[in-house]
Amino acid sequence: MATVECLGFKSAGIPAGLKKNGDPDLGLIYSASPAAAAAVFTRNLVQAAPVLLCRERIQSGRCRAILVNSGNANCCTGQQGMRDAVAMSAAAAAALGVDEDQVLVASTGVIGQPLPVEKIEAALPALVQKLAPDGFPRLAQAIMTTDTEPKLVTRRGTAGGRHYTIVAVAKGAGMIRPDMATMLCFVCTDAELSAAALDRALRRAVDVSFNRISIDGDTSTNDMVALMANGRSGARLATREDERDFTGLLEDALRELARWIVRDGEGVNKTAEICVQGARSTDEAYRVADTIAHSPLVKTAFFGQDANWGRILAAAGRAGIPLDPERLDLYFDDVQMVAGGVGCGPAAEAQATAVLKQAAFTVTLDLNQGAAAARFLTCDFSPDYVHINANYRT
Amino acid sequence: MATVECLGFKSAGIPAGLKKNGDPDLGLIYSASPAAAAAVFTRNLVQAAPVLLCRERIQSGRCRAILVNSGNANCCTGQQGMRDAVAMSAAAAAALGVDEDQVLVASTGVIGQPLPVEKIEAALPALVQKLAPDGFPRLAQAIMTTDTEPKLVTRRGTAGGRHYTIVAVAKGAGMIRPDMATMLCFVCTDAELSAAALDRALRRAVDVSFNRISIDGDTSTNDMVALMANGRSGARLATREDERDFTGLLEDALRELARWIVRDGEGVNKTAEICVQGARSTDEAYRVADTIAHSPLVKTAFFGQDANWGRILAAAGRAGIPLDPERLDLYFDDVQMVAGGVGCGPAAEAQATAVLKQAAFTVTLDLNQGAAAARFLTCDFSPDYVHINANYRT
Repeated sequence: MATVECLGFKSAGIPAGLKKNGDPDLGLIYSASPAAAAAVFTRNLVQAAPVLLCRERIQSGRCRAILVNSGNANCCTGQQGMRDAVAMSAAAAAALGVDEDQVLVASTGVIGQPLPVEKIEAALPALVQKLAPDGFPRLAQAIMTTDTEPKLVTRRGTAGGRHYTIVAVAKGAGMIRPDMATMLCFVCTDAELSAAALDRALRRAVDVSFNRISIDGDTSTNDMVALMANGRSGARLATREDERDFTGLLEDALRELARWIVRDGEGVNKTAEICVQGARSTDEAYRVADTIAHSPLVKTAFFGQDANWGRILAAAGRAGIPLDPERLDLYFDDVQMVAGGVGCGPAAEAQATAVLKQAAFTVTLDLNQGAAAARFLTCDFSPDYVHINANYRT
Repeated sequence: MATVECLGFKSAGIPAGLKKNGDPDLGLIYSASPAAAAAVFTRNLVQAAPVLLCRERIQSGRCRAILVNSGNANCCTGQQGMRDAVAMSAAAAAALGVDEDQVLVASTGVIGQPLPVEKIEAALPALVQKLAPDGFPRLAQAIMTTDTEPKLVTRRGTAGGRHYTIVAVAKGAGMIRPDMATMLCFVCTDAELSAAALDRALRRAVDVSFNRISIDGDTSTNDMVALMANGRSGARLATREDERDFTGLLEDALRELARWIVRDGEGVNKTAEICVQGARSTDEAYRVADTIAHSPLVKTAFFGQDANWGRILAAAGRAGIPLDPERLDLYFDDVQMVAGGVGCGPAAEAQATAVLKQAAFTVTLDLNQGAAAARFLTCDFSPDYVHINANYRT
């Protein structure tokens, strides 16, 4: 991998003894100058202490550093959990010499166990010492739980004749060993834009990326996506067009990470893009795609490479939106399986079975009642998923 | 099993060649005199032809016979499917000498394949000839798909000094081999009550039985529960108390069938009753119980006998109702696992693991924000579930 840098940012990742196997489990991002910041968090009402703390701190729209640990989610840990999250941020602020309220913290791992915050405090001097402009790959490694590879993507853009960089790291969601299947993503850019513009761009990009993937439908208590912009490239996003370009690059980067997360989920053999079109509104299209993407019967059929279109129609039928079964058309890639709610017969089934033998394919359902569409990325449901999640804590 | 009879009703079940293995696949219920009737159907918008036909016919509140086949769901079969459903009912009406619009029909099995209605027509004379007062067990057998045992329950009640009987047969829902995991249930009683009273009793009983079980959350295109009352016992349900008694017996019978269906689902090793209490309304309690009961992470933990309470709290947190995580108490049977949102520690975990080793247990979540409660019966999610559903059609 070519060296990845983003002007004015340093990062690092080291082992701090939170993971039993000695793997890196503590990561840090630091901006040498003040940075604008935005973040989105899990919508689960049961939220880990670091999420509660960051929700408050991000209101300022400023952030200098993010400290993140894997191996322990610091969730369902009561008031002690909040004290530990604050202690984590205080330790990072002291070691870096920045304001404590400009430090965000994140945790992922087993829930319900006290965070060994003393291990984090003890490791911080070494972590700060390791901070380096090319530290992103080590950061990406430190936030892994059972991801099989660190996930890091970059994009380059231009504004006002100056180049800027976006660097994003993420760890996996759902269907994977971590107890709560937390999804974490941290994005740095050396472009210059306001906290309000950052917030708009981030919400839009998350909506078309991380909010459009499904592994098992269980929303984590710790999910968080944070974005910092320090302007050190000198590329100022001054016009609407600049902002649109930036948002497009960010969407593209987060979509790549989202796909990577699904593909890398343990127990995943197939990824399927569910495309629902011909809906009366994007929301209705989304609801149908979401229901299909979460159906265990659909997902087990994908695992079995079975072009079982009846299950897809049945999932659509219970999505809670009005639709006319006799208008439904269904395709597996380019193979039409259903026309007007009726199956296209054995020849189509045979072709569709070949489509399902691929590692990735698209399922398109046309409701034929409007012009809106939505896409959702999902995966198969395998016996490995069950084994992994049945035996996680034992 | 003692002989089961319900005055004035005859039933039968025989092989008609719809199932490849030659098992019974055609069943008939017949009332010797006019009967009041009520039915509830799947809420899936994709509905099989027999469901569409019965929805219309049940409006009359009268029914003389129900003809049901397994081996083919007659769903997603277009206009031909409706013609076939009508032909099924016409054949039964002719063979029995009753009005065609007083015959209900039901189908279960693979969807998207034309119903071989000629086999049903050919078998009808033999089926009618087999009709007998003690034919319920053979009916129960004929509607089976991968249920491992026929499901038949009875209840006895009294009204106005006369005894009456309720007989109910059912076949399994979800998580089992049939493509669409159809749930069918047919109930006969020789009590006398109006179609309106029947409808009230049936809706109430279904709401606390079949609507409170989850196997995989996939709602079938063919689900149907039908109830006939012919009054032949002379027991007339004249008072509110009589009606309440009847409804109680019906609830009890359908709850027994619902539990049986879950327990007998293929791939099921554990059944868990999810009890959510301390909610502000029954609807909110139901939504939380429903979300927990459908969570793949919770269900795989049950399979693994892992007292993974964090997953249960996380499921509650995404149920879409307001709740305070710091008020949550959680119990596995009588073992308290969580108090005020915080885990009760290793000793409780050890005790809870012993609870989960049982074949059946109760999970109680107290929201501590009201007085309403709801129960939901669910099961574990096993590798067998995946294998069965991955390889159903191949």
